[in-house]
Amino acid sequence: MSDYINVALDGMGGDNAPVEIVKGAVDAVNESKKIRVYITGYEDLINAELAKYTYNKEQIIVVPTTEMIEMAEPPVLAIRKKKDSSIVKALNMVKDGTCDAYVSAGSTGATLVGGQVIVGKLKGVERAPFAPILPTLNGFSLLIDSGANVDARPSHLLQFAKMGTIYMESVLGIKNPTVGIINIGAEEEKGNALVKETFPLLKNCPDINFIGSVEAREVAHGAADILICEAFTGNVVIKMYEGVSSAVMKCIKKAFMSNLKSKIGALLVKKSVKDAVKGFSTESHGGAPMLGLNGLVVKTHGSSKSIEIKNSILQCITFKEQNINQKIKEKLSVEDN
Amino acid sequence: MSDYINVALDGMGGDNAPVEIVKGAVDAVNESKKIRVYITGYEDLINAELAKYTYNKEQIIVVPTTEMIEMAEPPVLAIRKKKDSSIVKALNMVKDGTCDAYVSAGSTGATLVGGQVIVGKLKGVERAPFAPILPTLNGFSLLIDSGANVDARPSHLLQFAKMGTIYMESVLGIKNPTVGIINIGAEEEKGNALVKETFPLLKNCPDINFIGSVEAREVAHGAADILICEAFTGNVVIKMYEGVSSAVMKCIKKAFMSNLKSKIGALLVKKSVKDAVKGFSTESHGGAPMLGLNGLVVKTHGSSKSIEIKNSILQCITFKEQNINQKIKEKLSVEDN
Repeated sequence: MSDYINVALDGMGGDNAPVEIVKGAVDAVNESKKIRVYITGYEDLINAELAKYTYNKEQIIVVPTTEMIEMAEPPVLAIRKKKDSSIVKALNMVKDGTCDAYVSAGSTGATLVGGQVIVGKLKGVERAPFAPILPTLNGFSLLIDSGANVDARPSHLLQFAKMGTIYMESVLGIKNPTVGIINIGAEEEKGNALVKETFPLLKNCPDINFIGSVEAREVAHGAADILICEAFTGNVVIKMYEGVSSAVMKCIKKAFMSNLKSKIGALLVKKSVKDAVKGFSTESHGGAPMLGLNGLVVKTHGSSKSIEIKNSILQCITFKEQNINQKIKEKLSVEDN
Repeated sequence: MSDYINVALDGMGGDNAPVEIVKGAVDAVNESKKIRVYITGYEDLINAELAKYTYNKEQIIVVPTTEMIEMAEPPVLAIRKKKDSSIVKALNMVKDGTCDAYVSAGSTGATLVGGQVIVGKLKGVERAPFAPILPTLNGFSLLIDSGANVDARPSHLLQFAKMGTIYMESVLGIKNPTVGIINIGAEEEKGNALVKETFPLLKNCPDINFIGSVEAREVAHGAADILICEAFTGNVVIKMYEGVSSAVMKCIKKAFMSNLKSKIGALLVKKSVKDAVKGFSTESHGGAPMLGLNGLVVKTHGSSKSIEIKNSILQCITFKEQNINQKIKEKLSVEDN
């Protein structure tokens, strides 16, 4: 049935593969009749997991592969050499039109490189950015770009802002999302050469709701719905985010154990603190898209459980039904004229 | 007595000026006979504070000024226009040789701009970086550069590493400190153009203990004693550090108040958590130096109390006695030959 929205799912990627990956696929098809999932991976392992569940057999198809790309492998080489890996096979199914979308909890590097090299960019897109979601004190922000291609040009950043706005409105349901550029000060004249050149382009763009510079100090507090930056900066932002929050938590856990009084107190506050910090973890928000490709490419956290896999798969419905790529093509070609 | 180490202290800078500033100066001279402090600022205010204390009158001299640079003022303009401000006057005392060092809790921008424009760079120094201290889980790291001059060149970063090493060894007492470059991956081939060009320079430099790339995720965990980066990146690092730790703390405080059980527990853990997080705050570590100038320029946090002011002043003794600038000149001129 060609009416399905077809998703290629990397069955071998992530810390909990294939157990949680397969469970996520089953949960997704049991929740929506619109989805068909092609799971790539070691046939025996995938089938053994599938055998545990009841689901519409037409909605899950196993695509046997014989290789696996490890987390630590150099991505460019891995993509080139391991043609029969779960990642390369799944990406090729988007390329050849069998699937509309790709979801993986595996190697970020391989997904980002493969997204560009195998799936390929939409016409008019200069660079396809990676846009993870950062939880903030008042919700979340989309951070574009935190991918593999550093040293972007101002025109790239402008495209990121347009694509991010379309994604945020149509997929995440935030109307007229605010766009900020990560900068070292709030004033317009502040910044490095890239930011100074990009600022007027964003300011004069009618397609986005630009609110100016955002200092890194304000990121976790939720300064803008969409945070635009070059990928080196984006990588520093997301990794500082993860590193500092984990360090502060370590510090607090140590404090909890520092004396008897604290130990007793810790027992009482433990649950609330755990719940609060969970919402603040980068892992709690579904998959991160790579925008501007000939199909949707979604990377979920390496530690993803079935719930994140399911959400990432179901997100593909919105992406397809909202014609995101059509909208991106329209917005970007306006620019070209 | 010209045997004193003379420090120009901005008496009007910071949230707690002049009360805590003056107290810090008094505490410093009462702790060391080697120091003389020139406090710049509104004469009446400074004298009224000084009148509260007992100290050797020869060691504190008030330098009357009539203007003040506010935190929010554009620094370049402020430095140029307010010649009789406490900051400009204090910087000029370093320039004309009256003082060896400058300490301020006031406008960071004005201090950084004034450091370069008024005090001036040492011969051979291409760029004078700002090097704040970041507390980490196992101590602290020196972050160079987090100043105002972005878009650095590889040769600048190499000089930052050399100057940072000298400062860390001679002033902070860390022998053979490790040097890492902030990067988006651990492998040598990763990075933007600047990092890729700088990496071999650091690797082949005999004067530093280079350990390679440090991902932003590892910064708060204490990956290297000295973290080298371009100022835009350094600004993002330090501001993410401050923003994320404050957001996580807000989140935890909210959790403490979320129900009765947590509220009771919070009373018991409060002190330990407060102590633990204090050591993790960027404010708890003394002043941050600007390296490579014709004199020592130290900026302490805007919220500094007398203890930070005192420590920043006393740090000038080590700086002077260890002949830091002589060492920097020697190391950098080796490079010139």
